[in-house]
Amino acid sequence: MSELMARAGALDAADELAGARKQFVLDTVSDHAADAAGVYLDGNSLGALPANVPAHVEDVVRRQWGELRIRSWDESGWWTAPERIGDRIAPLVGAAPGQIVVGDSTSVNVFKAVVAAVRMAESAGTGRDEILVDATTFPTDGYIAESAARMTGRTLRPVTPAEVPGALSDRTAAVLLNHVDYRTGRLHDLPSLTAAVHAAGALAVWDLCHSAGALPVGLDEHGVDLAVGCTYKYLNGGPGSPAYLYVRRDLQDRFDSPLPGWNSHTEPFGMRPAYEPASGAPRGRVGTPDILSMLALEAALEVWDGVSIDAVRAKSLALTDFFLECVGAYVGEGRVESLTPVAHAERGSQVALRCEGAGEVMKRLIERGVVGDFRHPDVLRFGFTPLYVGFADAERAARVLGEVLTGEVLSGEAPC
Amino acid sequence: MSELMARAGALDAADELAGARKQFVLDTVSDHAADAAGVYLDGNSLGALPANVPAHVEDVVRRQWGELRIRSWDESGWWTAPERIGDRIAPLVGAAPGQIVVGDSTSVNVFKAVVAAVRMAESAGTGRDEILVDATTFPTDGYIAESAARMTGRTLRPVTPAEVPGALSDRTAAVLLNHVDYRTGRLHDLPSLTAAVHAAGALAVWDLCHSAGALPVGLDEHGVDLAVGCTYKYLNGGPGSPAYLYVRRDLQDRFDSPLPGWNSHTEPFGMRPAYEPASGAPRGRVGTPDILSMLALEAALEVWDGVSIDAVRAKSLALTDFFLECVGAYVGEGRVESLTPVAHAERGSQVALRCEGAGEVMKRLIERGVVGDFRHPDVLRFGFTPLYVGFADAERAARVLGEVLTGEVLSGEAPC
Repeated sequence: MSELMARAGALDAADELAGARKQFVLDTVSDHAADAAGVYLDGNSLGALPANVPAHVEDVVRRQWGELRIRSWDESGWWTAPERIGDRIAPLVGAAPGQIVVGDSTSVNVFKAVVAAVRMAESAGTGRDEILVDATTFPTDGYIAESAARMTGRTLRPVTPAEVPGALSDRTAAVLLNHVDYRTGRLHDLPSLTAAVHAAGALAVWDLCHSAGALPVGLDEHGVDLAVGCTYKYLNGGPGSPAYLYVRRDLQDRFDSPLPGWNSHTEPFGMRPAYEPASGAPRGRVGTPDILSMLALEAALEVWDGVSIDAVRAKSLALTDFFLECVGAYVGEGRVESLTPVAHAERGSQVALRCEGAGEVMKRLIERGVVGDFRHPDVLRFGFTPLYVGFADAERAARVLGEVLTGEVLSGEAPC
Repeated sequence: MSELMARAGALDAADELAGARKQFVLDTVSDHAADAAGVYLDGNSLGALPANVPAHVEDVVRRQWGELRIRSWDESGWWTAPERIGDRIAPLVGAAPGQIVVGDSTSVNVFKAVVAAVRMAESAGTGRDEILVDATTFPTDGYIAESAARMTGRTLRPVTPAEVPGALSDRTAAVLLNHVDYRTGRLHDLPSLTAAVHAAGALAVWDLCHSAGALPVGLDEHGVDLAVGCTYKYLNGGPGSPAYLYVRRDLQDRFDSPLPGWNSHTEPFGMRPAYEPASGAPRGRVGTPDILSMLALEAALEVWDGVSIDAVRAKSLALTDFFLECVGAYVGEGRVESLTPVAHAERGSQVALRCEGAGEVMKRLIERGVVGDFRHPDVLRFGFTPLYVGFADAERAARVLGEVLTGEVLSGEAPC
């Protein structure tokens, strides 16, 4: 056994979060044999299945829908699920209750948040005609921000997060930023950027897709105005599970939604012709919530009971440190280049390696049971989800990567 | 046995759709005993559970998500589900393939459709500054249309469907109408209203929530421009299952979405900073589809295999005719007033009865196992879903209503 393998074993033995792995369905035997003993490093794209979810979904389908039917809107708590589940996400992103509502996709929530932020800036009485958007952001945020700008008569200006402080002015209405760069895994400085945005009199909207559940966010502490995020990555809500919207409590009365659906009415069943928005988080709702996906998410969030997000962050950094060390040891000089910052303060919970022929390399990794993903044109992404990824997984992934890149195959392991 | 009970038995025996009922989970024993032998007349709010759905959802959760994980986006057909399921809905609303995409809520789709319609009218080069909206519509359509008007600089003008022909002018950009009035069950004349809208040079957007799956719609035949609908009523997709958007084929290239999320990009995984819309139905997509709800819907749609929507319509009208006849026989003169048109051409698939103390009456009906719903302030709604409601159900519902209104209790039946 190599020194790195021995170190991995010791690190796993000392890991206070190691017990969380048993709450997930992993190590399953599928028709794709190589996956059976695989290393799943794509939880930053789709989180693994929490073990309690299947039985819960079955109850939702068979009993709540199949037997109680329409009564479940009240009796099974369907109607209040968006706020209730929002309150369950809240502590994971440093928010007090009553400020997060779950529903719709991230893209739809970006639209709500950016338009609402522009309107809040407008209601302050200034002539703020510019929206800044993270030029390195996941593309949908840029597309949607462009639409929000067009529909509110603002100009959209893409800048890198580093350029934001210099780009802010009294023309800035709102700034949309990603907490972690989806491609490189770079963590942006939410506290100082938010403070800079506020100093310029603008509103800060943060996309937490790649940070929530992986590291502390501190929405309330840092005075973030609005935030959105998905729930199918580090929150393990399932494929396409609903996203969420955070509106800081003291801004909620000024949240003027571009999507004022009946679910956000102060009296939804009054069926009134005139719209009158609800107070609080429900003002961010739109249409009927998709209950199956939403209640699967609610069950999935139970894995966080008793888990400290600081412990998650500590393990995440230790995992990515160790993985980078193993890559250094196993992968020949110059074969890959890490795009992920070395400094902990600038690192999310993934490692991105630039690699020639990355698409083909990732295919071979997956054949060998190491599941990451490929991002065009030349990036290998490896996501580290501290609740179910261990140090032996990190060592093995780096080792298999080294083998794939040298064309070797580990003895005793069939190449798929 | 009364004459009406005998007639109900004969009608059920001759019903060519009677066999469809066994494809649904009904007559379940729940903790609410009275429901066990109940009559479910609320399928116009939440359709009953198709019997094949639970096993399919379990496979989606346990195998597709739990074992295949990220690979399911390709291998389990997750990515293409929105268009594939759209094509499955298409024949039910008279649409050729390639024009319907599933996703988001009805409210969000109303926003896409109305904004896109206004932009299409604008691109025609005229100064059309007015949107007409059905003043009797389900409230969310009006709220969302108001936002669409505000964000496109148009004026929203609520009119009843009957007033539409007189309200149309060269100022009209788009008209948003409901096919069936959610409260009264009145069916509006889609062919002639669409023709009138077109004669005025405007675009017609139809909301099919209360008609799709209950009667022929004929979107293509009647040249409807855009349409939206939910899937949890007569389509039985489950609570909050995703809605759909229809864009007529020859308008798709001009569909300019206010919600241009990455899923609607011509190359979603190119991760390009500039938005370039996809061709065809996928242009109506926004964010990541909610797979659990969406694939439950896909399984639910299997009950339509081999079912003629004309046969559904014929049975629906026979059911509502028979129910009204039974109400006439069992309910004392003047106790209820039907808001649902007598003429078949003006009737959807529900019966709405105005009734003093309707809220309390509905409570007592539900206690007796007859599940309809109450709409503020004084309406009892009874939805007739021809795939699983029979004539004996209609007779029993009317009989129990008569008993509840006279305070009598049928011998042999405990009043819960």
